[in-house]
Formats: sequence, structure tokens, C-alpha cells
Amino acid sequence: MKFFENGDGLTEPRGFFCAGIHCDVKGKRDGKLDLGIVYSSKPCNAAAVFTTNDVKAAPVLYSQSLLLNKNAKFHAVIANSGNANACTGKQGLADSKKMGTETARQLKVREDEVLVCSTGRIGVTLPMSRITAGIRDASEDILGEFDGAQAFQEAILTSDTCTKSCSVTINTGRGEISIGGVVKGAGMIEPNMATMLAFITTDAAAENDFLKDILKKAVDQSFNRITIDGDMSTNDSVILLANGNSGVEIAGDDKKLSEAFYKGLEAVCQCLAKKCVSDGEKVTKLVTICIRGTHTNEEAAKVARCISNSLLVKSSWFGSDPNWGRVIDAAGYAKVGLKFEKIDMFYNQVPVLQKGEPIESNKSQWKEIVSKRTFNITVDLNLGGGNAEIWTNDLSEEYVNFNKSE
Amino acid sequence: MKFFENGDGLTEPRGFFCAGIHCDVKGKRDGKLDLGIVYSSKPCNAAAVFTTNDVKAAPVLYSQSLLLNKNAKFHAVIANSGNANACTGKQGLADSKKMGTETARQLKVREDEVLVCSTGRIGVTLPMSRITAGIRDASEDILGEFDGAQAFQEAILTSDTCTKSCSVTINTGRGEISIGGVVKGAGMIEPNMATMLAFITTDAAAENDFLKDILKKAVDQSFNRITIDGDMSTNDSVILLANGNSGVEIAGDDKKLSEAFYKGLEAVCQCLAKKCVSDGEKVTKLVTICIRGTHTNEEAAKVARCISNSLLVKSSWFGSDPNWGRVIDAAGYAKVGLKFEKIDMFYNQVPVLQKGEPIESNKSQWKEIVSKRTFNITVDLNLGGGNAEIWTNDLSEEYVNFNKSE
Repeated sequence: MKFFENGDGLTEPRGFFCAGIHCDVKGKRDGKLDLGIVYSSKPCNAAAVFTTNDVKAAPVLYSQSLLLNKNAKFHAVIANSGNANACTGKQGLADSKKMGTETARQLKVREDEVLVCSTGRIGVTLPMSRITAGIRDASEDILGEFDGAQAFQEAILTSDTCTKSCSVTINTGRGEISIGGVVKGAGMIEPNMATMLAFITTDAAAENDFLKDILKKAVDQSFNRITIDGDMSTNDSVILLANGNSGVEIAGDDKKLSEAFYKGLEAVCQCLAKKCVSDGEKVTKLVTICIRGTHTNEEAAKVARCISNSLLVKSSWFGSDPNWGRVIDAAGYAKVGLKFEKIDMFYNQVPVLQKGEPIESNKSQWKEIVSKRTFNITVDLNLGGGNAEIWTNDLSEEYVNFNKSE
Repeated sequence: MKFFENGDGLTEPRGFFCAGIHCDVKGKRDGKLDLGIVYSSKPCNAAAVFTTNDVKAAPVLYSQSLLLNKNAKFHAVIANSGNANACTGKQGLADSKKMGTETARQLKVREDEVLVCSTGRIGVTLPMSRITAGIRDASEDILGEFDGAQAFQEAILTSDTCTKSCSVTINTGRGEISIGGVVKGAGMIEPNMATMLAFITTDAAAENDFLKDILKKAVDQSFNRITIDGDMSTNDSVILLANGNSGVEIAGDDKKLSEAFYKGLEAVCQCLAKKCVSDGEKVTKLVTICIRGTHTNEEAAKVARCISNSLLVKSSWFGSDPNWGRVIDAAGYAKVGLKFEKIDMFYNQVPVLQKGEPIESNKSQWKEIVSKRTFNITVDLNLGGGNAEIWTNDLSEEYVNFNKSE
């Protein structure tokens, strides 16, 4: 497996084309690219994972309805930034459908062969005349096979500071396959996903059911392990399209091949998830929380989330303060029955607590580690065999300043 | 019932004395009062509610052990700020016991007649020689009947910006009784309590079991309804002392009298809880979240907590931005089965959503309300008869700046 960070991402697998254009979703006339299309002339099998928030945005409801058809094939995804089309009632649902069907019309494919995504402000209806004009422009770029991979990556960004992409190629013996992905993230990032749109393409061939299972597994090991601010959005979507252009068929019964494909998919998802956390709103630190020794993995995840969502813990990381007391306090209110006198804790490999006793002689090393841009915190509860890992970040004054109005 | 805000609080009921002195817990020689005693020469019945965090500070464990004795009587509470004596292992437990027994020795009462509280930094052992000297000084003030009510209020503060007290007097027909209280709060405030120490005194007479039941009920209606930053501490304690000096015996079988006493206790607890939220670290807004129309009260509380702990919601309040989308998004991830198209929402009395439709014509009024220092948000899910109310506040840049190191 060869791994490529950044780069074109979605168009690395053969037969995929992207476009990204400015249609002025926000009415600001700032020229920001805000509408994009991913397209394959060959129809794709597909799978997706969506937000579990009770409040699902119109594009999520629309795309979910198309994916209910087990034999569904798709040619394209249309996505906009700047407006989430969430909490927009019947008008919102009609607008999402219109985005899908208008894209289908321009690309000359069937109405139910286009998935729809939106991200941005909640509670405002889409400016449909500008969106429709944008769909026409983007479709022209697609049909003209214009190289729009980078433009698409830009078009989906909201408060992100950079585009985020990667890809892998796998030599299967039966031929090479590629998997490419892009993501937009930033605010509202929580386990079980966020205001995050992730798109993944592959030129492998695979059945819808297989893609669904394998995508769920990969998302659990990647996007569901990140948390920025504990907020889960109305629009989170991870969409996987497989057009089969490589001629290599992946199926569950060929264990070795499907395992290799899974590894590639997981690598892409994990890379994108970590990029998402690093590019969280006004973030200065990327912190990995490893919890071990709980009774179950679920308990470990609960402890990891209490720590990674604690404002006091996150604020202390921002200040490079190795305040282990706040970490242990947060672990305590996960209420998994921890005993302080059993806890081992580490900053990177450096002991902080051994069976609840602080190793004060390491204090200057703790400070040094917590001052770095990236570090790990390991907490071993020594109660059982459960474990979990979460990737998170600090909370800066700029986060609050940035989010105090929109 | 007569209600007094601020004032002497704990010494309003007859027979209680307070002291507050500087013993330099933090070793900063800044003169801040940091050790206090509440005392009654007549032995008190008592009840307490403590943190439910798995990690309980040594003074919590020590005081809990004394309260296990159903017939326990107490003469005093000794409390320090500046050091929580939490995560301090066997030394911490020995130090808490020493605080209690040394206070008992100075006040010439039995060892098991003194409760102990600490609040402040986690993971540092107490400077016991300075604490012991402080206990001697404070006990001298108590036995000299020096008027230390205000000094005690100051001595328990950490990052609080002001002292917080109140009292009520109730004319029972059989004689007047008083209930007084003080609280310290600030960071780490969450439902089911926080880094909060609250002390309540009364000159009514009542059995321990009665006090326990009634205090739990009052705490559920007050301190368990507040949230500042979602962090629950290792030291939260609410302690109620009843010395019977009024000669009025309150018992469960006199419904009218016990109801009047409860109303007074609830009023004191609610006043202190609200003062706590208003004085949260670097807070600029006090917001009441009213959730209605859920299937159960528990669901309503869950929704209220998701909203009140959302960083995006709290940041938008700080910016006086009536961003109802973030409120609804947070309600959605409580996962109580809400339907957006059924939701009614209000800022104070002004409609924001009616059955999921935004009432945009009210927009300037929304902005005006959210710009105030105090406002209510009501969300009616229209699914059932459940409801809950939570008092919370905004998240300011100063909060992060303040908490980035300690």
C-alpha cells in the first residue's frame, strides 16, 4: 500500500472528476468557492454514514432516502458550503431535492443518481437561483473534464483553514486499486461525527452491502474517535463511491483482498479524521487520549470523552499547563468506578502517576511535553482489559472569539 | 417568610459563630483569608450531600465517614480554600482527619464532632503546619465570640469574585426560626454539583433523617440545576447544621410546619445556586433554560444540559448572537426523539420557532433579549408532559484565558 498525503484525493482513483465553483451561497460576493461536484461517468455503488443527531438537515434526509434502495447506483454528489440547509422545514427538503435533480439534469443522469450534501449556517434557506446557476457552471466543468480536484476541496470548506485530502494505492495482484478522500471539518466535531463532510472514492468494484459494512467499521476507527468541542452537527456525512474502473472486484469472501481494501480505507479515514482535529477552530494542540484498563471498551470511550470534552482540561492544554488533576477529575465524572490509588498516567512515555502517586521528579518533563503541538495522554485505570483512543485538541480564547457570532 | 439577600448568612440563626483567617494555604503570603470555622456551642444534627464523582477528595471521604453514624452530632465545620486536598492519597486522608481532630481539640469538643471541607487546586498536599496554626487562630476567634461571618464567607472563596450569602426567617406560630447559607463556586459547576462548598445553618430542631431527606430534595431543586462548564469536581459538598436553638422542633408528621421549613430551605438553596452561576468564572450572562413537552422529566433535563453545556451555544450568548440553530442542534444530540417540525421556542416570551417555523419578524427582539445580562430560553418539544429547568451562563474568552494555567 502506498499512501499519499494531500494531493488530489478524490480524482486519484480512475474515472472520477471534480469541480468547484463560486455561486455566492452567502451573498457576500467574496469569490469563495462554495459549490462542488464529484462525478463518475460509470455508475457507482455507494455507502454512507450520517449524523445521529435527532435534527437532521434536509440534504441528509434526502440522501438517506436515495440510499434506502439497496440496488441504488450513483453518478455524482453535489455539495455546497456556507449554508447547512438545516432546520429549514419543507422548503429545505424541496431545495435539497432540487439540488439533486437539477444536477442530474445537467449531468444527464437519472434523478435518483445524485447524492446531496450541505454545510454551514443552520436555519437559513438556500438561495436557490444562485445555487441552480452554480450547478450549471459546475456541471459544465465536469462534462468538459476540467481538472477541478483542488477546487472541489476548497468549495466544501467553511471555517477550515486548509484543504484536507489523501489517497492510497494498493497492488492487489489482480491489478492496482486506489482510494482517495477529502474532508471538511472545524467546529462541531464530536464522536459519532460532526459538521463534517467526508467524501471517499475508489476505483475498486464492490457491492453496496459490502461497502456499507466496511465503511461503518472504518468510520468507527476514525471519524468517531475525534472530538473538538463536543457538539454534534445536523449535517455530518461520510460518503463512499465505488465505480469499479480498476476492474478489481472486492468481496467479503476473498478475505485477503477485502482485508487489504479495508486497511486502505481505514488509513484514508484515519488520516482525514486527524487532519480534521488539527484544523479544528483556532486549535493550537493535537492531543491523543489513550484510556486503558477499564472493564469494557465502552467505559474507556466514556472516560476518554469526559477528558477530551472538559473545558478546564482543554483550557489548560492551551496554556501548556500539565494539570493532571483536571484530567483525573474529568475521568472521575465518567463514573466507571475508577479507584484513584490504582491509576497510572503518562504524558507521552513519561510517568505522571504511578498507582495514584504523582512522580513529581518528572514535573519539568510533563511541562515540556504539554508545551508541544502534539502529545499523548495515557490513563490506565488498572481495572480490566478495556481500552479506547480519542484524538482531540485544546480550547483557545480565539475559539470563543471566533464563535461568539456568525 | 422573610428573605434577606447577602448579609451575614450563617450567623443569622441563633447560636452560630463563624471565623475566617489567613493561614497562607498557598504559600503566597498575599493575606487572602483561606481558613474558616462554623461553630455552634449547642451540638447540631446534620445532613450533607457530596459530589458523585468517582474521585472524591479526602475531606469528602472523611466527612462522609463521620456522617455514617446515624446519631452523630456536630459542633463545627472547618474549611479551607486554596487546596482541595484531592488526589493526595493516604497523606491526604491523614491531613483531613488531622484538620478535624485539631479543630475539635482547640474548640474542646469530641473528635468526631467536626466536619471538614477543602476547595482549590487538586493533587497537592496541604501545608499542615500552617493549617494547624490557622486552626488555632480561628478557634480563638470562635471562642472569643468574635463576629467573623463575613470573614468566613471570604475565607472559602477561590476564583469567586464576591461572597455569596442569604437567609430567611419563618414565623412558625410556635416561634421564629431562621435558615442561613453561604456558598463558594465558580469553575467546575455542573448538575449533580461541582467545586462548590455550600454551608447552611438553622436554629430549628430536627432529626438527622428528616434533615437528610429534606436537604436532598432542596439540592435537587437548586444546586443540581446549575451548570457552568460541565465539569463536576472532587470536592462538592452541601452541609446543613441544625442546632435547635429556636426551640422549634420540625418533624415530618407536622406537614404544615415541615412544608414551611422546606420552602425556606429551598429558597436559600436556590438563591445560593443562582449566585453561584452568576459568579461563574468570567461569566457575562445568566441564562435559564426551560425545556417542556418531553416524554419524561429526565429527557427534559438531558436536553437542557446538552444546550447549556454546548460550547457553540455558550460562545454565541457571549457574543449576544441569537443563534437558535445552535440551540436546536444541541437539543438534537440529546437524542430524545425530537421532531423539528413540532418545536416551539422562545427568547423570554418572544416566539423564535412555532412548530419549527422561524418567526423572522421577531428577529430584532431576539437580538435585544440575548444582549441582556439575564434571559430565558424556552424550548417546547410538544411530545409529552416532561419538563426541566437549568440555570447556566455564557462562555467568554476570559474564561479560557483564566483557566489556561493555574
